[in-house]
Amino acid sequence: MTRVRAVWWDDATAALLLVDQTRLPAEHAVVACRDVDCLVDAIERLVVRGAPALGVAGAYGVALALQRAAAQGWDGERLRREVERIRAARPTAVNLAWGVDRAYAAASGGVGAVLAEAHRIAADDEAANRRLSALGADWVQSRVGRRPIRVLTHCNTGGLATSAWGTALGIVRELHGRGLLARVVADETRPLLQGSRLTAWELAQDGIEVVVEVDGAAASTILRGLVDVAVVGADRIARNGDTANKVGTVGVALACAAAGIPFVVAAPSSTVDAATPTGADIPIELRDEDEVLVVAGTRMAPAGVGALNPAFDVTPYRLIGAVVTEHGAVEPDGGDLLRRLTGVDA
Amino acid sequence: MTRVRAVWWDDATAALLLVDQTRLPAEHAVVACRDVDCLVDAIERLVVRGAPALGVAGAYGVALALQRAAAQGWDGERLRREVERIRAARPTAVNLAWGVDRAYAAASGGVGAVLAEAHRIAADDEAANRRLSALGADWVQSRVGRRPIRVLTHCNTGGLATSAWGTALGIVRELHGRGLLARVVADETRPLLQGSRLTAWELAQDGIEVVVEVDGAAASTILRGLVDVAVVGADRIARNGDTANKVGTVGVALACAAAGIPFVVAAPSSTVDAATPTGADIPIELRDEDEVLVVAGTRMAPAGVGALNPAFDVTPYRLIGAVVTEHGAVEPDGGDLLRRLTGVDA
Repeated sequence: MTRVRAVWWDDATAALLLVDQTRLPAEHAVVACRDVDCLVDAIERLVVRGAPALGVAGAYGVALALQRAAAQGWDGERLRREVERIRAARPTAVNLAWGVDRAYAAASGGVGAVLAEAHRIAADDEAANRRLSALGADWVQSRVGRRPIRVLTHCNTGGLATSAWGTALGIVRELHGRGLLARVVADETRPLLQGSRLTAWELAQDGIEVVVEVDGAAASTILRGLVDVAVVGADRIARNGDTANKVGTVGVALACAAAGIPFVVAAPSSTVDAATPTGADIPIELRDEDEVLVVAGTRMAPAGVGALNPAFDVTPYRLIGAVVTEHGAVEPDGGDLLRRLTGVDA
Repeated sequence: MTRVRAVWWDDATAALLLVDQTRLPAEHAVVACRDVDCLVDAIERLVVRGAPALGVAGAYGVALALQRAAAQGWDGERLRREVERIRAARPTAVNLAWGVDRAYAAASGGVGAVLAEAHRIAADDEAANRRLSALGADWVQSRVGRRPIRVLTHCNTGGLATSAWGTALGIVRELHGRGLLARVVADETRPLLQGSRLTAWELAQDGIEVVVEVDGAAASTILRGLVDVAVVGADRIARNGDTANKVGTVGVALACAAAGIPFVVAAPSSTVDAATPTGADIPIELRDEDEVLVVAGTRMAPAGVGALNPAFDVTPYRLIGAVVTEHGAVEPDGGDLLRRLTGVDA
């Protein structure tokens, strides 16, 4: 299968390279960031997106900040402020702050130590992705009777959204590898169409059959029995299992509950936030109104009309059949998910 | 308030005039149809859309067919075939076939009689719209405690979708007229964006506050308590109350049920189909894949990827708080809605 990489460090130019996901699949452009401004802009514009990929990019961002600190003689306070800018570039995905914090903790060792930590985060993420994909496929296989299995997914959770491989799409790839996958129904995922642009592109590259539908079609596709399971990623999972993910996800979960099919959340354990007790504690990013009102360069709504543009929604744990991390598949019951996942108190 | 008209007959040119709804709000173009081909194309391309407006357009279409029959010497069989083409141009909205049948029944009286019948259908539809809007507003007022009332709607059900005034948007206008409306959240309604293009335009013209959201945001908007009621139109209502409406509607209904807020279907009684026992009997139109894959002229999905593009979905009666027609608001219980609406067996 194609190995899609969204984020990597280029030693030769001491730059962080990012596939520009705003331009896929029409163009495969790469953005090279050498400073914090470039990275913050890339994160805000969704050149790089997906919770696990943001964790990796944030970690490499600390290396960029440290390089500039050395070149421009920043004091510790200035360095801290610049690192905080990366950390706060998007508020919902907890992995971004987590990756920045982990890399920044190595800053006293210099750029080399930070880079080593960032490489470790990327490698760990890929390993976690592969492990949770196998465990998730096991869980789906045990809960879905139909063969081959028809999967619905929302947004993009593949190699582009992670260090490599994918979370929900990792499970899809694993099912495909096991010969158990019929096809994928991919919600287009407005406003930025990560489903039709990115998920369809990744799956087509892997030779996995995919059809795209508008987000509004998901509920009827599920209720009509056209899919057997929905598998999605996560931007932040609260301790009780409530899960923030791309806007539209909770509608998928409601339809799965009504249809009696499983709804699965797949994420590395770095997405489970010990500091977030419930979904009510997750900040939901409100993005620019024009993402909704202007479509492919054309303003659709009349002038003067505004938009409500939350980037995420929260799915209550009661609607989630399983949260799958590299530690296993846990069926949320409102109790402490972290303890159940890892067997230890966080 | 602005009087939006989507469909009207021009005596001077003996033509059916249609506001081209594929081009609003950027352009206010009018298509003049003088034959069946033009009208069938306009219906298929959604130049004219909305169940009640299709009923009116279909009725005038019979006059167009009759004019051509006279000019070209068609026999009765040819006339019947041409009328059937109009009737079958879209399969889900029952009003189209209903309007065609009603006008065709007057065909023995000539073009004048058919035109008179079509004018009557248009006038009746407007009267039904105004009556159901008042009755629907009464029902909403009695069931929603909060003042002013925040309404969510899906697709377009205003003057453009009807002979004039509107169904679900008619209720919105009525609530606004009573000083009870806070604002409207309009789902953009992919793939063809009738919400952001048409609903936002109609409401803005009336000075009603409206914000647009992507369809995927509807569930969380409802679950977060940001609206008090959802009001939608219908393309066909089965005798048991199951309702076909624009794809995405059943997701709105599921979210309303989960949030405990009312979900209201508003339509003239011509949308209730005596020949359709349940939602399972409603044919769902599958439209061109490129409506999903190509957005504002730009292909989003990679080449070779297909789409699933049902134009409608079916909301089970159990999720519907009230079906409002000009005969009153009925709370569906699975029993015969027509009998409950009209008090007579259809």
